[in-house]
Amino acid sequence: MLKKLVAEFIGTAWLVLGGCGSAVLAAAFPDLGIGFVGVSLAFGLTVVTMAYAVGHVSGCHLNPAVSVGLWAGGRFAARDLPAYIVAQVLGAVAGAGMLYLIASGKADFSLAGGFASNGFGDHSPGGYALAAAFVCEVVLTFAFLFVIMGATHGAAPRGFAPLAIGLALTLIHLISIPVTNTSVNPARSTGPALFVGGWALQQLWLFWVAPILGGALGGFVYRWLSPNDPAPVDVSGD
Amino acid sequence: MLKKLVAEFIGTAWLVLGGCGSAVLAAAFPDLGIGFVGVSLAFGLTVVTMAYAVGHVSGCHLNPAVSVGLWAGGRFAARDLPAYIVAQVLGAVAGAGMLYLIASGKADFSLAGGFASNGFGDHSPGGYALAAAFVCEVVLTFAFLFVIMGATHGAAPRGFAPLAIGLALTLIHLISIPVTNTSVNPARSTGPALFVGGWALQQLWLFWVAPILGGALGGFVYRWLSPNDPAPVDVSGD
Amino acid sequence: MLKKLVAEFIGTAWLVLGGCGSAVLAAAFPDLGIGFVGVSLAFGLTVVTMAYAVGHVSGCHLNPAVSVGLWAGGRFAARDLPAYIVAQVLGAVAGAGMLYLIASGKADFSLAGGFASNGFGDHSPGGYALAAAFVCEVVLTFAFLFVIMGATHGAAPRGFAPLAIGLALTLIHLISIPVTNTSVNPARSTGPALFVGGWALQQLWLFWVAPILGGALGGFVYRWLSPNDPAPVDVSGD
Amino acid sequence: MLKKLVAEFIGTAWLVLGGCGSAVLAAAFPDLGIGFVGVSLAFGLTVVTMAYAVGHVSGCHLNPAVSVGLWAGGRFAARDLPAYIVAQVLGAVAGAGMLYLIASGKADFSLAGGFASNGFGDHSPGGYALAAAFVCEVVLTFAFLFVIMGATHGAAPRGFAPLAIGLALTLIHLISIPVTNTSVNPARSTGPALFVGGWALQQLWLFWVAPILGGALGGFVYRWLSPNDPAPVDVSGD
Repeated sequence: MLKKLVAEFIGTAWLVLGGCGSAVLAAAFPDLGIGFVGVSLAFGLTVVTMAYAVGHVSGCHLNPAVSVGLWAGGRFAARDLPAYIVAQVLGAVAGAGMLYLIASGKADFSLAGGFASNGFGDHSPGGYALAAAFVCEVVLTFAFLFVIMGATHGAAPRGFAPLAIGLALTLIHLISIPVTNTSVNPARSTGPALFVGGWALQQLWLFWVAPILGGALGGFVYRWLSPNDPAPVDVSGD
Repeated sequence: MLKKLVAEFIGTAWLVLGGCGSAVLAAAFPDLGIGFVGVSLAFGLTVVTMAYAVGHVSGCHLNPAVSVGLWAGGRFAARDLPAYIVAQVLGAVAGAGMLYLIASGKADFSLAGGFASNGFGDHSPGGYALAAAFVCEVVLTFAFLFVIMGATHGAAPRGFAPLAIGLALTLIHLISIPVTNTSVNPARSTGPALFVGGWALQQLWLFWVAPILGGALGGFVYRWLSPNDPAPVDVSGD
Repeated sequence: MLKKLVAEFIGTAWLVLGGCGSAVLAAAFPDLGIGFVGVSLAFGLTVVTMAYAVGHVSGCHLNPAVSVGLWAGGRFAARDLPAYIVAQVLGAVAGAGMLYLIASGKADFSLAGGFASNGFGDHSPGGYALAAAFVCEVVLTFAFLFVIMGATHGAAPRGFAPLAIGLALTLIHLISIPVTNTSVNPARSTGPALFVGGWALQQLWLFWVAPILGGALGGFVYRWLSPNDPAPVDVSGD
Repeated sequence: MLKKLVAEFIGTAWLVLGGCGSAVLAAAFPDLGIGFVGVSLAFGLTVVTMAYAVGHVSGCHLNPAVSVGLWAGGRFAARDLPAYIVAQVLGAVAGAGMLYLIASGKADFSLAGGFASNGFGDHSPGGYALAAAFVCEVVLTFAFLFVIMGATHGAAPRGFAPLAIGLALTLIHLISIPVTNTSVNPARSTGPALFVGGWALQQLWLFWVAPILGGALGGFVYRWLSPNDPAPVDVSGD
């Protein structure tokens, strides 16, 4: 179990350093910046790369909503949820810390820029209201878990699940960065929010409630649609 | 059969929410927007992700032109066409509905922006005339079905079909968003058109006729080129 | 053999329609255009999609430099070269013709825009001189064939060759669109040049000589580096 | 061994020509340039393509920090390090040389533009200080080797390692081009620096020390997390 938790810790740190890092360091670079396309790609690739690297160790959830969704889908034991979620949140904080170390090496850096925190209303990148943000996070995390359950199902092609799952996260960001800066992952939201404080912490509840609700629904619906047979071993699909 | 139709419903809803959603919410975001590259990627990834998730359930057509083309190619039973097409159209409407819920959470949202509907002439993004739009949709849906038939053929590498097919849809959008906003999928066209009404409904006929014509031709030509042996089971290629 | 030639014809038409089409129709669309990144992706995806679709039919060369390079590498029979090259050139002309049909449906279309032809000197997008253009085309086609030979080698992983080869073409475009508009494919160069005439035909010799020279070298060097054992069947690597 | 060194030489030349070439030739092309997204994609695709092509020949390291990291991870013999590193550096110089030949074919080319050299402080694209640059290169090379070790582990899915590793390099560039222009590879840094001289050579030490330190740590930590069983043969994962 220790090695599983270390894998979740390192993997989630990579997700936050890579995804939020691309947003903070490179998205708005003058003329040559990567924009939302690059950030979407970066978030997805953190999952693609880590799922191939540690999928066979921990299942590579990197996300409390994924762990809860897989539990709802009958693929993960309830007794392992607390330890996984703690490791994921600690990893996210560590990832945000490393990003802070790097980002603050630029003279005009300021946490007031948001540090890639998630938000709604006045703190939504495009000014989307609370209800839209909530629906958006529920629906997209539903779809995320639906894809995760399906791509790791025993009847799906072997070995492609990390690609399918990582690219699902890219797709989710292509849709929803303007709405909430895209969470679908309570740990990813918590890391930067602890550094920014204030509004980011006040709005953090939504990015725990909505993704976990959507993720649980996604796991549950997929389980009805296509019961496990045979039971797959991990998120890496192999 | 119920589960197959639910899979087509959810999958097509995802295609419209993801593809049209990226266009409506993120394409033209100031400075950091994803542009046509991001929208093309998003449409393709809806298919990549769903084909890995439900390919083994329903074949993951998500598109009446695909179902008809696979029938023309000798891979799908005529008696299943009506139910599949109804499920796809209902899914597309549901996806457009969810998108409306989210998009209308922004104060200055308006359906007059087009809501990612397909069009020609005055309603073509680049002002392309009816004939060019018709040729474009026929030719690209021909190629789409040609690739689908080939990538799911028994002699093609196992497990790669969802990538090949999804990336074909990305490619098709990279070419033709300026021409018709890219349909190649009557269900995808119908979802947003029902919300926008007016011109979008008046021009909708083209996005049923041209894709189905092109798709049927593609299935037919590929079947001549490389008959099935052995017969593959589903679009996911596995 | 007829079916092989039809597959090469359709595949090369797709390469020109998709690659040059994305450049002509979508690259410079105001604000939302796909730029050189989108065009690079489109060219690569034409090969990814067709290699999965017809790799098991014809080997999916779609390019005289590839056919010659595979001959130099000991993977293709000299007696089949003429027919393959004729089918590829005819396909490229057909693809350019379909693109012309679509592109001319916009009121302000003009072939004077270049129609995605390849060129050097005054007709290089970035103003690169003849010698640089020649070196660039030789070196990049060398690398293209080196990757094709390797990814389809019997010791390479099964089924991934279409991805590796298509993404190699994307990479080649990311590097060299500014230099020559990127050929590495005499058929692709010939299609648009026949429509544009004038300078495009006068400069066309370079885009036959350099890619074929580089491709033959690439096939030859790889053959020395890693002889075939066992001999692979086709470019799709499966 | 000669063929292994030739493979490393050609592969590293391709990495520098492709990655640095896309940056020098195409990144800042007016209006249509590929930006940091395109450069990130290009660097990653050099590794994807070469790993499928020569992974079964040399393991396709293309990077002294990778060779050292794999040694620290128990996957590579110390006695082979010197020859591999010399071949990689010579390949990088050859790649930079070919790029110089092409790039100087444009009238207004100047090495004063940086020629894609790596730097910190005044020579960091975004003005990041030495400490941030050092941390950034250590952490990202740590993650790079962690992914390489995992994706080529005997328990990971077969054949996907080139994709996972190449896309990891894309991700690393999406994060860190603004910080150091992204090295994580001492050979890649050395090639252009020899042409630029001056500051590029003075700052070169960091791009040997930090990547090798991070890479060794990554190999070491992964080895603890998931010992080899069975021992994989090469970086291509097959």
